[in-house]
Amino acid sequence: MRIALVAPLMESVPPSFYGGTERVVSALTEELVRRGHEVTLFASGDSRTSANLVACAARGLRLDPEAQDYPAYTMIELGDVYARAAQFDVIHNHVDYFAFPFARLSNTPTVTTPHGRLDLPEVRRVYSLFPEQRLVSISRAQRAPLPDANWAATVYNGIDTGHFKFQPRGGDYLVFVGRISPDKRVDRAVEIARDVGMRLLIAAKVDPADSDYYKHAVEPLIRRSRLVEFVGEVDEARKDQLLGGAYASLFPIDWPEPFGLTMVESMAAGTPVIAYRAGSVPEIIEDGITGFVCDSVRAMVEAVPRVAELDRSACRRHVEARFSAGVMTSAYEEVYETIVRGRHTPKLASPLHLIERNVQQAPGRAV
Amino acid sequence: MRIALVAPLMESVPPSFYGGTERVVSALTEELVRRGHEVTLFASGDSRTSANLVACAARGLRLDPEAQDYPAYTMIELGDVYARAAQFDVIHNHVDYFAFPFARLSNTPTVTTPHGRLDLPEVRRVYSLFPEQRLVSISRAQRAPLPDANWAATVYNGIDTGHFKFQPRGGDYLVFVGRISPDKRVDRAVEIARDVGMRLLIAAKVDPADSDYYKHAVEPLIRRSRLVEFVGEVDEARKDQLLGGAYASLFPIDWPEPFGLTMVESMAAGTPVIAYRAGSVPEIIEDGITGFVCDSVRAMVEAVPRVAELDRSACRRHVEARFSAGVMTSAYEEVYETIVRGRHTPKLASPLHLIERNVQQAPGRAV
Repeated sequence: MRIALVAPLMESVPPSFYGGTERVVSALTEELVRRGHEVTLFASGDSRTSANLVACAARGLRLDPEAQDYPAYTMIELGDVYARAAQFDVIHNHVDYFAFPFARLSNTPTVTTPHGRLDLPEVRRVYSLFPEQRLVSISRAQRAPLPDANWAATVYNGIDTGHFKFQPRGGDYLVFVGRISPDKRVDRAVEIARDVGMRLLIAAKVDPADSDYYKHAVEPLIRRSRLVEFVGEVDEARKDQLLGGAYASLFPIDWPEPFGLTMVESMAAGTPVIAYRAGSVPEIIEDGITGFVCDSVRAMVEAVPRVAELDRSACRRHVEARFSAGVMTSAYEEVYETIVRGRHTPKLASPLHLIERNVQQAPGRAV
Repeated sequence: MRIALVAPLMESVPPSFYGGTERVVSALTEELVRRGHEVTLFASGDSRTSANLVACAARGLRLDPEAQDYPAYTMIELGDVYARAAQFDVIHNHVDYFAFPFARLSNTPTVTTPHGRLDLPEVRRVYSLFPEQRLVSISRAQRAPLPDANWAATVYNGIDTGHFKFQPRGGDYLVFVGRISPDKRVDRAVEIARDVGMRLLIAAKVDPADSDYYKHAVEPLIRRSRLVEFVGEVDEARKDQLLGGAYASLFPIDWPEPFGLTMVESMAAGTPVIAYRAGSVPEIIEDGITGFVCDSVRAMVEAVPRVAELDRSACRRHVEARFSAGVMTSAYEEVYETIVRGRHTPKLASPLHLIERNVQQAPGRAV
């Protein structure tokens, strides 16, 4: 099949450091190529891939000091994609709603995997204006705010398990991997480490937007505790070491995260995850087998000693069975085939008619 | 004529405080309604207008603490606009390139007035992917980075001169009105005030993105000088007082500003402008008559005593003749008429064909 994959331009594919979406797109791209598909990857120019690369920005925007107008790059990318649309059987969009008006212009079908939260009121409204767009959710939880959208499937994110070495014996420290932000609640991780008296390593990026939060809310907590060490942003090899060498990972999020890739990476290295129940967490962790899904910080603290009872190899097996690149790719192949086969089904008369109806139904509009 | 005006959602129309684009859209809207057109204004819900208002966000996003995903609001707005496109003779877009893919979907012609800078490489590339889009420049200088775009006209921004009271006698202070950012170079204004020993009032907003710059680069300068006073962000009435009561306005910009509305507002109140030569400055100030266009900070310092020789009523007359809402509206009416009359001219075969050609011509693309 001739497949266009449209990746975000914020990070390279795969990313050098942080970047869950770009990592997932990379795993999917490489596996699709390995299976004989003709894959074109639209991504930043510093991406590394065995697919045909169309460079839509010189390098990942987050690490490019010259990039100023980020949405402009996404428009460039989508302009490129849809100018070549006739060359593809299917376009798989990973840059969210920006692609929707372009998708309406095209005879090549588009399927979108949203990687962000869909619960913001403004995001829900955008999606409702494009109800014909085919969507794939990355967890069942992600669908909750938009139950009536045109969902084609749920396909869990997958990782290249070869990038993570299974460590049969865990270490003596806790680890927090990800991003510093109020949503991720690293402060809860610090609290838990202090309560149980274990070392905590924090490997995380700090976005400029979160630097005030880091400085005022996180750094003082870290400074006050001998047990906590801030490692900064790490690459995948270092992340593998940190995760595999840990006793347990902490995932104390406070937002409906649609998919927490770090949980999967941790389990791939053999390390169970103690997580706060939110978003996709209960779908990713097998409670009591590959980690613990907790309803309070206190429950997370109480879960720490119980990690010793868990079988680390069950964590690895769980990832290989459900969250590998292979499993994800097979699921997407099925989605693509259904969509391409479905091309001869009667098309909706007019997408503009659809939004028109939708607009009239929306409550409380001032005109 | 049935006209849709698509305003940015960052501020209300007109804005309560800062917001040049929204102020210009407001002046155009009200004057078009006064002239008997059927005008629909797409804008934030706290806008005040005599046109039909379609509220695309509850209130101006910059002052709405709940708004998180700004581009989503613009997509909602454009979804609304183009769902009703058949109700309009022409759509006048003020939200830049976001409208381009929608415009391609529609049989109603769209004309876009870009209000931002077009010299960023990424912005130039977006525009080159949509070469069929009709554009109106707000100054000749704005066109420089995109000389070959589909320019329909240059229409200078206009203000409601009734909002600014002509003050025949200026005061004894200098004034800087606008926004604190490295582009606007308020530091140069402070330097000039110190050199000439005059008081300087600064009325400006500080965006969160510029708060570090303000704290580290501007505030220390202000603290060190008895002559300088920071007034903060002001509404239009206070701005009118500040400008009209001044001896001269300073406009020491360091970027190719496509149109500096503050210069026009200052001249409307009778106060000459001493500006740095950049972007649209030489098109807005009549050098030696309504102010001075300078090539260095030293030249700006030397211009200060010469302001006493200028006729403040010439400033007011200059605005009424070139930068009033009436003059601007007449020019846009002509643009709309040309476009609407031109609807029967042969349409380009396929806009997708156009981008395709463009993509192939673009140099240095990695595929």
